[in-house]
Amino acid sequence: MNGARSLVQTLYGSGVEVCFTNPGTSEIHFVAALDAQPEMRAILGLFEGVVTGAADGYARMKGKPACTLLHLGPGLGNGLANLHNARRARVPVVNIVGDHATYHRHLDAPLTSDIESIASAVSGWLRVSRDAVSVARDGAEAVAASYGPPGQVATLILPADTAWEAPGMHVDPVPRRTPLAPDAARVEEVARTLRAAGASGTLLVNGPALCEEGLVLLGRIAVATGARVFTDTFVTRIARGAGRVNVPRLPYLGEQAVALLEGTRHLVTVGTKAPVSFFAYPGMPSELTPPGCSVHALAEPAEDAMAALDALVDALDATQAVPATAPEERPPLPTGTLTPKSIAQVIANLLPDHAIVMNEAATAGTPIPGFTTTSAPHDWLDLTGGAIGQGMPAATGAAVACPDRKVLSLQADGSGMYTVQALWTQAREELDVTTVIFANRRYAILEMEYSRVGAGDPSDSTRDLFDLSRPTLDWVGLAKSMGVRGVRATTAEELARGLERGFSEGGPYLVEAVL
Amino acid sequence: MNGARSLVQTLYGSGVEVCFTNPGTSEIHFVAALDAQPEMRAILGLFEGVVTGAADGYARMKGKPACTLLHLGPGLGNGLANLHNARRARVPVVNIVGDHATYHRHLDAPLTSDIESIASAVSGWLRVSRDAVSVARDGAEAVAASYGPPGQVATLILPADTAWEAPGMHVDPVPRRTPLAPDAARVEEVARTLRAAGASGTLLVNGPALCEEGLVLLGRIAVATGARVFTDTFVTRIARGAGRVNVPRLPYLGEQAVALLEGTRHLVTVGTKAPVSFFAYPGMPSELTPPGCSVHALAEPAEDAMAALDALVDALDATQAVPATAPEERPPLPTGTLTPKSIAQVIANLLPDHAIVMNEAATAGTPIPGFTTTSAPHDWLDLTGGAIGQGMPAATGAAVACPDRKVLSLQADGSGMYTVQALWTQAREELDVTTVIFANRRYAILEMEYSRVGAGDPSDSTRDLFDLSRPTLDWVGLAKSMGVRGVRATTAEELARGLERGFSEGGPYLVEAVL
Repeated sequence: MNGARSLVQTLYGSGVEVCFTNPGTSEIHFVAALDAQPEMRAILGLFEGVVTGAADGYARMKGKPACTLLHLGPGLGNGLANLHNARRARVPVVNIVGDHATYHRHLDAPLTSDIESIASAVSGWLRVSRDAVSVARDGAEAVAASYGPPGQVATLILPADTAWEAPGMHVDPVPRRTPLAPDAARVEEVARTLRAAGASGTLLVNGPALCEEGLVLLGRIAVATGARVFTDTFVTRIARGAGRVNVPRLPYLGEQAVALLEGTRHLVTVGTKAPVSFFAYPGMPSELTPPGCSVHALAEPAEDAMAALDALVDALDATQAVPATAPEERPPLPTGTLTPKSIAQVIANLLPDHAIVMNEAATAGTPIPGFTTTSAPHDWLDLTGGAIGQGMPAATGAAVACPDRKVLSLQADGSGMYTVQALWTQAREELDVTTVIFANRRYAILEMEYSRVGAGDPSDSTRDLFDLSRPTLDWVGLAKSMGVRGVRATTAEELARGLERGFSEGGPYLVEAVL
Repeated sequence: MNGARSLVQTLYGSGVEVCFTNPGTSEIHFVAALDAQPEMRAILGLFEGVVTGAADGYARMKGKPACTLLHLGPGLGNGLANLHNARRARVPVVNIVGDHATYHRHLDAPLTSDIESIASAVSGWLRVSRDAVSVARDGAEAVAASYGPPGQVATLILPADTAWEAPGMHVDPVPRRTPLAPDAARVEEVARTLRAAGASGTLLVNGPALCEEGLVLLGRIAVATGARVFTDTFVTRIARGAGRVNVPRLPYLGEQAVALLEGTRHLVTVGTKAPVSFFAYPGMPSELTPPGCSVHALAEPAEDAMAALDALVDALDATQAVPATAPEERPPLPTGTLTPKSIAQVIANLLPDHAIVMNEAATAGTPIPGFTTTSAPHDWLDLTGGAIGQGMPAATGAAVACPDRKVLSLQADGSGMYTVQALWTQAREELDVTTVIFANRRYAILEMEYSRVGAGDPSDSTRDLFDLSRPTLDWVGLAKSMGVRGVRATTAEELARGLERGFSEGGPYLVEAVL
């Protein structure tokens, strides 16, 4: 058994069932080993940004890692942006990067590069395999490491000869560290603080606590103390919709977040940290916590947030508190021209039961969270690291993880072009993903940010640099060219018909919503 | 004047005329400064791999740097593969990466990452600007540094506040280091060696010596000594076609290169180093120089290769030697089914005078160099670093550099999907690029490499992982969806008609050559 075979066997034995990949010559023995382990599903992406984004989406929905298989430094570079997003999402990813054979590296062949430097920017764990004997153990440790806590990108660099040499040794799964609950004294202190603070107490939450049960606990805490609860602006995953406790997000714009947090004297963080502005702006604060507000970490990202919330509910004697849950109330289907609002209404009306929503709709998607609060129950995933081009790949991975659920991919057009190749993988794997392209045909967020950073009003030539209409991108044509059916919608009625078709047919479908 | 304004002024004053970009919020002040300096042409790419590949292609044709403008670590990551290719091409690129404001970085906002680690893998020069006062000097030094010698990627990381703060100070161009000629003793030694070696002497060349005049000097040396001359397998740029001294390339396959170099006792390198195998293969040599062969560096990549060749020709008393040049002999236009050979014949027949050929045709393009030896004179650019997805972006940049010349972009389908967004920039800028997609609908090179690395014969399921036909990519549809006209060709006649149309119409055009 060669190293590659031992590695794939060990990864599978450690619970890794899917390999998202775009391999090259240096990874061929790993590919051959995948072939010998058909239980491990190999999924091809036409670009590494698709591969890594899919691994992120898969992990968010499955709660465990897929592995990637990337081709040396350039392949890693191509996948780096979505590994950055996965890092920010704190999800487990086993990121395998092939390299030249150990004895070939010093010759500086054309594809040689400093893979470790590139990988270090996104990896919580990083190792270069030394030989065939140890590669399976490296793989088992990578899987364990990927769970953190918190979840992280564990990168294993795999020189080609560690894959093709023998003997590879199968290794049993390595125990993973489990997150610890915060100690009782801290919970007690937070309970005292929140009780005393009343409406001047605020919880800010991200991570695993945003599951359905976690939201109930958060709701109980709010009922018992009068505290408000918000999520980070961009969440890894949150349960939303009818029957769920609704926790609103902190606004993207710092000044709105500051206004919302005004009056908060005690901020309690769960699975996140005190809020900061997404970008810096001249003359505006980067830290969004009100002056004088004290910050209390109930659960650090590495800690067991659910246990912490359970303990806090107990400490508050709030186990019987009954938080409000969202009713099922779908807005009526609008008619006429498409606007961000009417798109949101159509989506809120038609959202299928237990859909997975991957949100990279950017500016034009702003009204959607509000309207979908009372839609059918669903899971919602955000672009977590600000590296655009995550949406369609992550939707792809989520559909692989949950073949029995509908995936709705909300995608801004400018961002969508970053990893447009994801549509092909959706077609090839016949994934049940319906994509809505928000075709405003410009980088609208940059127009908005232009004056916010103090650069004045954009001139015509500057607007032209943010413009995607010269020539117009034909999204239906792009999708069709990659095997995905679709339709263009210029009215709410057309959008509704398109979405209904996408949700009912199974397989991938795309609606270009022209704004 | 703020820092951004001083930087753009200084870059322009230092000879940087084009900025390829996909900016974000942290780069907006730079965008505003571009607007105030309309002589600097700003060209938008829909993905950073397009931006960096275009900067590479531009530099190869213009002999001077363009600048990029990328959005933080993820934007750099997206552009990394083509920066890797530019690094291997040893061309000057001024790579500007925006970052958060200096005081914002420690807050670890979502887009924060270790930009320096990522950039270090591709940059010969790397600096983080400290403040608005020094940013223009940093820019001027980046320009000078990009020239090397040899040419390199000079990365300037630009925290947002260094752009928006004042005062920025305009800086005059910084003198750049010029490459030195090797000393006379070394030239003399190489002359003696080659004279004595006769047919057992071989020159291996890459870099600036592959210009028309350099090839004449190489030809004189060959005539005077009996030495053979080859280029690296992948060259930055070479003058080819009728009237030029033809210098063949070393084959991609190591075993073929070894066979070709058999009998070489003295290898003289010019602008490159002793040849190594592109990948390692079990049981095959990584170093391709014959055992016992001595290697003599006439000109290191940092040295003045043209001066070295001039001196060597003098030392050999070969200034009057007349090397053979290629006649103009176009193969007749073939008919019938498309094959790699018939595609090469069509291209060789129709290649326009002084065209620029960007070659990323991969396996199906193998016959093209042979057939185009006697085509109209042209410049030929290769994928230098093995990071696929360079072809269409570099063709884009070459067309920006040389608006009066036809650009022929030879593009494998699998590689082309990496940076397919380049077509949109070609349409937007109305660039005169004709693209031929080699649509064999598979990663054919991986099928070939599978057995070469000793993995046996690929199984059906492995072949499926290299297969691009499920679903079939519609390249004409992709192009049309991004504003580029095109046609599908399944016969040599259709290919010829398509190419003629592409060359005659001006503006971008695409022919999908179905193999």
